[in-house]
Amino acid sequence: MKQTSSSHVVLAHGGGGELTRKLLSERVIPRLANEFLDPLTDSAVLPAVEGEICFTTDSYVVEPLIFPGGDIGRLAICGTVNDLAVMGARPLALSVGLILEEGLPLELLDRVVDSMAAAAKEAAVPVVTGDTKVIEQRGGSGMTITTAGVGAMRAGFRPGAGLIEAGDRVIVSGLIAEHGLAVMAARESLGIDSLLKSDAAPLAGLVKTVCDACHTIRFVRDPTRGGVAGVVADLVDDAALGVEIEESALPIAPAVRHAAELLGLDPLTVANEGKIVIVVSEEDAERALEACRSHPLGRAATIVGRIVESDPPLAELITRIGGRLVIQRPYGEELPRIC
Amino acid sequence: MKQTSSSHVVLAHGGGGELTRKLLSERVIPRLANEFLDPLTDSAVLPAVEGEICFTTDSYVVEPLIFPGGDIGRLAICGTVNDLAVMGARPLALSVGLILEEGLPLELLDRVVDSMAAAAKEAAVPVVTGDTKVIEQRGGSGMTITTAGVGAMRAGFRPGAGLIEAGDRVIVSGLIAEHGLAVMAARESLGIDSLLKSDAAPLAGLVKTVCDACHTIRFVRDPTRGGVAGVVADLVDDAALGVEIEESALPIAPAVRHAAELLGLDPLTVANEGKIVIVVSEEDAERALEACRSHPLGRAATIVGRIVESDPPLAELITRIGGRLVIQRPYGEELPRIC
Repeated sequence: MKQTSSSHVVLAHGGGGELTRKLLSERVIPRLANEFLDPLTDSAVLPAVEGEICFTTDSYVVEPLIFPGGDIGRLAICGTVNDLAVMGARPLALSVGLILEEGLPLELLDRVVDSMAAAAKEAAVPVVTGDTKVIEQRGGSGMTITTAGVGAMRAGFRPGAGLIEAGDRVIVSGLIAEHGLAVMAARESLGIDSLLKSDAAPLAGLVKTVCDACHTIRFVRDPTRGGVAGVVADLVDDAALGVEIEESALPIAPAVRHAAELLGLDPLTVANEGKIVIVVSEEDAERALEACRSHPLGRAATIVGRIVESDPPLAELITRIGGRLVIQRPYGEELPRIC
Repeated sequence: MKQTSSSHVVLAHGGGGELTRKLLSERVIPRLANEFLDPLTDSAVLPAVEGEICFTTDSYVVEPLIFPGGDIGRLAICGTVNDLAVMGARPLALSVGLILEEGLPLELLDRVVDSMAAAAKEAAVPVVTGDTKVIEQRGGSGMTITTAGVGAMRAGFRPGAGLIEAGDRVIVSGLIAEHGLAVMAARESLGIDSLLKSDAAPLAGLVKTVCDACHTIRFVRDPTRGGVAGVVADLVDDAALGVEIEESALPIAPAVRHAAELLGLDPLTVANEGKIVIVVSEEDAERALEACRSHPLGRAATIVGRIVESDPPLAELITRIGGRLVIQRPYGEELPRIC
């Protein structure tokens, strides 16, 4: 099919002229519409915020653009909402920077923008400002998205590795390694696609539920790139304490375990996009667990380990037969372009 | 030369593991260091802001990455600072999303990050949070950057097309069309490179100087993609008034005029990255002009036109011989990948 500006992205869509205006006003803005975005000025103006402001950004280069359980649009919204949420912030507004490759079917763009709109609605956070550029066709996946987010910090609440103490418990909010394996399975056509689904979801509600229920939450993080292993490795570095994770306690779906084995991957190092790792005091661990399980996105929450004195500080996996394996941050790109 | 992870970007630099951490902690963070960025959490926490918040984003895909007068790093900082500034906001903090292509020489990355740091210092706005991803080598320019920015709105000051009245004057803060032509000349090797230089500069100081001096500023915009023509066309659409621009008054350097002729381009439609278009009441026009000229980035400011009643609303160029040409927003991509 001939690629025209009415069926596919062309370089001119990024030129800042009439065609850019048309693309945005006909296909993008109406899908994301809200009172802040609609003035279409260079920047959005947001109401005053009481207290400290939380600010974050993430770029998304996932391939394929659409995968079981989600797509790059859903991922870009959820990821940035989650980066705000794990800081204990209430997400207020998102920005979206689209870099499109010429030749991208406009229908695919529409689908991704619809998905962004749906995820933003689910998270109750509007996309208030954005930008669109076009680059030459070079056989890439067709688009990258960079979202940024602004949130309001909760007064008197600032989780962080510095608060962690020996004896604290480590909770994982649900089944791990789903996102990374769903994307890899889709890309490699493993034939087990139908069983694997990305967990991409906006977690601000879950984090709020847990933090409201439990005031000794020390630390919250979303285990994306690098997986639970990456979070635990950071934790050990930053808190200078040890972590013990019980292999038998890790919530892993059978299909995920199977796919990880096929691909030679350790589920602990695989990216999640809808889970949190929580560290909480020993006495509040059960309350935090219950709070987690009371939320639709935390039903399968589990206490998976605890913080220990350890010199040098180490993260260790206690295996089913009682052995000990050091948990390390993955070195490089075990799963390229997963988010 | 063999490409290794110590000389060039490899996919693993984007994996979120040890190599990502090394890249950021050794090459990126030290160059941009500030109190907000250094904790390296998922999000930055900024002090409370009084009043409304301004939020914006822009993606940068300029090719080549380095051009006379600037580079993609300088551009990415200045562009987002300027989008906040033209809203009348005081820029507070920036985020940076880097998408790197494998094979990018790390020395080039260093140079771009140094340039971001220098521009951020010049603008007095810290880069407080960021993200880095890596995509496969496909013969692209090597990197794209998406910046977002947060600013504090000035109380009681909200310039916008809705404030514009017939009789108002249009000021351009200096020589136009320099950025777009410098990039195109560098890309096409026109041999006139040495005379053309991008004007990329952070404009928050200039906008503040003008707005402090003159309380009837109606509208401020930075004429980037689409150039002055694009701004004027937007103005006509949004204010439903006409604009007359005097061709003889437009500040254009001889080398720029020459390059535009060579490339068959109208300087009015060419991108600027260090200029503002201001609309101000007739009685305050001289005061605004003087304020502009008192700032190092506004020395060549000129009154180039005025707002008129016009039905239908039209933007017109009054030529040197008294003719009238309709000024239109460029249709598509006359200058691809200019910013």
